[in-house]
Order: sequence, then C-alpha cells, then structure tokens
Amino acid sequence: MDWLKFFRAEKKANSAKTAKDRLMLAVAYQRSGLANGPAYLPKLREELLGVVRKYIQVPDDAVQFSVQREAGLEVLELNITLPDQP
Amino acid sequence: MDWLKFFRAEKKANSAKTAKDRLMLAVAYQRSGLANGPAYLPKLREELLGVVRKYIQVPDDAVQFSVQREAGLEVLELNITLPDQP
Repeated sequence: MDWLKFFRAEKKANSAKTAKDRLMLAVAYQRSGLANGPAYLPKLREELLGVVRKYIQVPDDAVQFSVQREAGLEVLELNITLPDQP
Repeated sequence: MDWLKFFRAEKKANSAKTAKDRLMLAVAYQRSGLANGPAYLPKLREELLGVVRKYIQVPDDAVQFSVQREAGLEVLELNITLPDQP
C-alpha cells in the first residue's frame, strides 16, 4: 500500500496552511459480510485516542477528528497539529 | 481528506485475496522542518500497537506491519486480517 503517496498529498495540503508538525492517525475497519464490526471496536478506538492524548497535550482546536462511513467500510481519522518543539 | 476513497481501493485489493474482515491502522508523522520527530514518537506508536494487540489476538501471520519513510514524512502501518466472528 502506498501510504507515502497518500500522506504526501496530505502533507502538501497541510504545508500550504502552516509549517507545523502533524500527527495523523487513521483506523479503518473493513467488513467482508453483512455483520456489524466486532463489539470491541468502539472501545479499541477510544483507547487508541487515549494513548494519543496521553502523549500529546494540545488544545482542542488543534485536533481534527472525523468518522467516515460507507457500505462495508468505516474510517476514524485524527489529524493533530503539534506544538513547536522547544 | 478522502479516507474512504483511499481505503476503498485497499478494500478492493484485499477482497480479491480473501473475504475476511480487516482492521487497518496508520500513524503518520509529518515534519515541517529539519528536526527529528518528537522523542515520544516511538513509545507512542508502541503503545498504540499494544492497545490493538490487547483487543485482537491473532497469529503473527495475520498481521502485516510496515514503516515507510521519506523526507519529512514517516508512516507506520498495520494491516490485520481478523478471525471470523462466532
């Protein structure tokens, strides 16, 4: 999977806005059948966000959060503008 | 960011192989300058993987793991084939 290509496009779009460091997290769940995702999925995602929050303390407006859905596919996305490093 | 479009392509490629549920995780770090990423980055990623491992017990060969790098961009990727649900 060419993630570099994907995030490179993203990087360009971001750079146009501000020259800040960013962390991007994506969690995608892909269903093969009609069943819902596993019961642990919401809890798993919540804990992933918890880990990010533990390491990165930023104001709420530095975090963009979205969930995208379509048949058989659900993507949670987090895009964080990081504070300047000391 | 059109994640759905991205993962949809991924989904097609996966479906051609097997009709299994999958969880995909991507963590991207984008640098604006020359400095290295924050010191917590490896630990943060390790903990994210730990959370996934806690919820999803699968054999090692069900997990594809990769790190891709280029100037100013580093992407860690995890692609897990999930066991059939009971």
